[in-house]
Amino acid sequence: MCGYALALVSKQSTKPPSGMRDFLAPDLLRRRHVIAILQEVYEAHGFVPLETPTIEKLSTLLGKYGEEGDQLLYRLLHRRDALRRPLEAAHAEGRVAHEAELADQGLRYDLTVPLARVVAQYRELPKFYKRYQIQPVWRADRPGKGRFREFYQCDVDITGTRSLIADAEVCSASAMALTRLGFDGFCIRLNHRELLRAMIRAAGIDEALEATALVAVDKLDKIGADGVAAELGERGIGADAARELLALVASDEVEVGDAEALRAHNTQLLAKLGARVDDRGQAAIAELRQLLALSASTPAGAHLQLSPELARGLGYYTGPIFEIAVADLKGSLGGGGRYDGLVGMFGKHEVPAVGFSLGLERILVVMEERGMFPTLGLGPDLMLCWLDVDQAEVLRVAAQLRAAGLAVEVFPEAAKLGKQLQYADADGVKARFAGILGERELGDGVLAVKHLASGQQAKIPLAQIDRARLDALAASDS
Amino acid sequence: MCGYALALVSKQSTKPPSGMRDFLAPDLLRRRHVIAILQEVYEAHGFVPLETPTIEKLSTLLGKYGEEGDQLLYRLLHRRDALRRPLEAAHAEGRVAHEAELADQGLRYDLTVPLARVVAQYRELPKFYKRYQIQPVWRADRPGKGRFREFYQCDVDITGTRSLIADAEVCSASAMALTRLGFDGFCIRLNHRELLRAMIRAAGIDEALEATALVAVDKLDKIGADGVAAELGERGIGADAARELLALVASDEVEVGDAEALRAHNTQLLAKLGARVDDRGQAAIAELRQLLALSASTPAGAHLQLSPELARGLGYYTGPIFEIAVADLKGSLGGGGRYDGLVGMFGKHEVPAVGFSLGLERILVVMEERGMFPTLGLGPDLMLCWLDVDQAEVLRVAAQLRAAGLAVEVFPEAAKLGKQLQYADADGVKARFAGILGERELGDGVLAVKHLASGQQAKIPLAQIDRARLDALAASDS
Repeated sequence: MCGYALALVSKQSTKPPSGMRDFLAPDLLRRRHVIAILQEVYEAHGFVPLETPTIEKLSTLLGKYGEEGDQLLYRLLHRRDALRRPLEAAHAEGRVAHEAELADQGLRYDLTVPLARVVAQYRELPKFYKRYQIQPVWRADRPGKGRFREFYQCDVDITGTRSLIADAEVCSASAMALTRLGFDGFCIRLNHRELLRAMIRAAGIDEALEATALVAVDKLDKIGADGVAAELGERGIGADAARELLALVASDEVEVGDAEALRAHNTQLLAKLGARVDDRGQAAIAELRQLLALSASTPAGAHLQLSPELARGLGYYTGPIFEIAVADLKGSLGGGGRYDGLVGMFGKHEVPAVGFSLGLERILVVMEERGMFPTLGLGPDLMLCWLDVDQAEVLRVAAQLRAAGLAVEVFPEAAKLGKQLQYADADGVKARFAGILGERELGDGVLAVKHLASGQQAKIPLAQIDRARLDALAASDS
Repeated sequence: MCGYALALVSKQSTKPPSGMRDFLAPDLLRRRHVIAILQEVYEAHGFVPLETPTIEKLSTLLGKYGEEGDQLLYRLLHRRDALRRPLEAAHAEGRVAHEAELADQGLRYDLTVPLARVVAQYRELPKFYKRYQIQPVWRADRPGKGRFREFYQCDVDITGTRSLIADAEVCSASAMALTRLGFDGFCIRLNHRELLRAMIRAAGIDEALEATALVAVDKLDKIGADGVAAELGERGIGADAARELLALVASDEVEVGDAEALRAHNTQLLAKLGARVDDRGQAAIAELRQLLALSASTPAGAHLQLSPELARGLGYYTGPIFEIAVADLKGSLGGGGRYDGLVGMFGKHEVPAVGFSLGLERILVVMEERGMFPTLGLGPDLMLCWLDVDQAEVLRVAAQLRAAGLAVEVFPEAAKLGKQLQYADADGVKARFAGILGERELGDGVLAVKHLASGQQAKIPLAQIDRARLDALAASDS
């Protein structure tokens, strides 16, 4: 009912806003391919779907992502009176209006805070709530190669239990998903927050410098041991303690895909660290041992690799932490861990939780670069071309073919047959077959069908045309 | 990497914002059921998917939806310097800051303006671009029963041709979609913008009052002929002209589902109107006749009903217009029409287009109210319950069952068997089967499987458990 302006608007940029993307059909086929596999694997693990609104109250979002996160939130401007009032008040009071007066809603920044809100809101959820959520989030970050302001996250979380079965299950789901997508040489790096803290204590580092030490250690991959030692020094940690900590978190490379070597690596490392850490560290090691044992026969079993330097931000994790590494790729395809303090934040009670998040955008980039997508047919099964026949007959034939289960496009205008066939095979159309309907075919109750890739063609009685018959024609090529 | 606040936040509302909704698993199953059918039918008609970003430039959105639409746009507040600068400038200049200084991006308001932007932007699109788009849009409207601020639209459009085959195809797709969803007694009301204008001329109404007259006529359904006559009078249209116009747009009711009566209704009405309108009106009638003939053998054929009073806002339509009516339902499930002036607005040339939009939210409400959903299984195929066995063995069995294609949830904690079985069948979980794994089962390489709905149970060798075997157990109930 809205009155669109009819006049042509003066020429302006028609690109999407910076950091945002249009997804045309070929992009969407690839995205849907990945999402369908994730959904199937998550559901095979007993996760159920959740979707939450794009817009959340700022009171829900603010303060959950740190100061930097708050800065990156998209806020929705108040409208009408709600906007006029604070602006006029600021003017009347001779002051600059404040951001907080101009907005009280914002865009979803991640999928974890909405999960926490949902868990607090709905009493009908099962005690062990296993949900997956595959939705976009928005961050007003500086856009760059592979970095977008609107991007998808794929999260699985299990709330309501401290059982390590839950930790093993999110690892199993993530490993099975990557395997089904065609990744093989990936590794799930594994560590434990309490083990990290115990190593810091064992190195003789003051507890007050714990967070500082971990930020530095987390960079081991990027800046190397010397770089980390230098950074620890700058942050007031003595050279001996720094050396000690680096020795504790050091571990050998394991060849990707060698399950035997991986098991030996994990066992030896846990034994080595077990000899060095205090009781709380021992408890963490026991949990890691149990998680590895639980996972042994799951899809994650051959991929879990103990990585004592893995820190993953640390802020909210309370137990095991995970991160996916792929050969020859900087950065990770996803990660997660146990975070028992977070999901209960909107309610009265603590709610234990463990989750694993996969980064859809990175997965897509890597799969594209490595040619991991199967052939995803873009076009319809058949483009119906026609010459010198009643157009109502053309649509009747199209309806009949569709009723037989085929995806059929109808060339919409009268045109020379050559032009119609060329269009059927053009980039961005790519029908698999062309069907040609002329006076003679109509009279005989047949369709001339041409397999566009091979040029193979045959006249087929209309009532016999279905996918099997078309496949047979395509196969007769050889 | 963001530092979540660990402290429990003081108790606050955990509802989604007004007009927004969380979709828990049962909601999503229904939404996905409908969306999957729409996608399948749209693809069967040769439409390809498109998704555009949530955020668009305000320069793209503003002025396209009329003044009321502009008011309902969600705008994104500028950040940091981009916000500070205009607020400080307003303060320095002693004036109230203006809304237009505070935002230059907003949320998608519909799917048609993004389509127009995409068509202008991407030269690789085929000449006849047939796209479907199923995505949410946002409008800061007053929320109410069945009215949301975030809601899905499902649009199909064909751009690049004036051929009525395209009009017939969008009607065919919409009718086939509704039929597949289980609607039968629906009608696609049909009219033509140029016929409407011709009727207004034929009634002797001044061309300047055309839009006014149509707004009134469009309410015939709601306020009746007397109401419309009164409104026409108020708007300065003489009683004779008003009476004349009402006589022209009047048409008989047709019994839903009576294809013969529908054809007679359409034929008679076109003949009656043909005798009254001028040449431009005759041209519109010829188009309607052709569209009805083209549609005769398509899924839309038995549903298209000429409705001379149908106006559909009129602003941007240029040819045939459609609207779906369902028995015993006020309002429509969707509509569309030809709009040759709009899609080219961001480019240099006019781009002819025709489209049909279905309203997902209304379709869901009606299907729910009328019990039109099939049984949509919420829970996993099997909940794996266990007693006195190594948990690693439990996960091994789960991995084996998942590899056999089953969706399996593992009870995550040690608990009494009765409690586990109760949980497997609880609301919000609803596993179809429970599998029971104890020491004896493990030793024998079997699983005790119980069909929860019937209580039927059997011990089945692990390697034999798949969907077929489980279905057989469920069927053995009788």
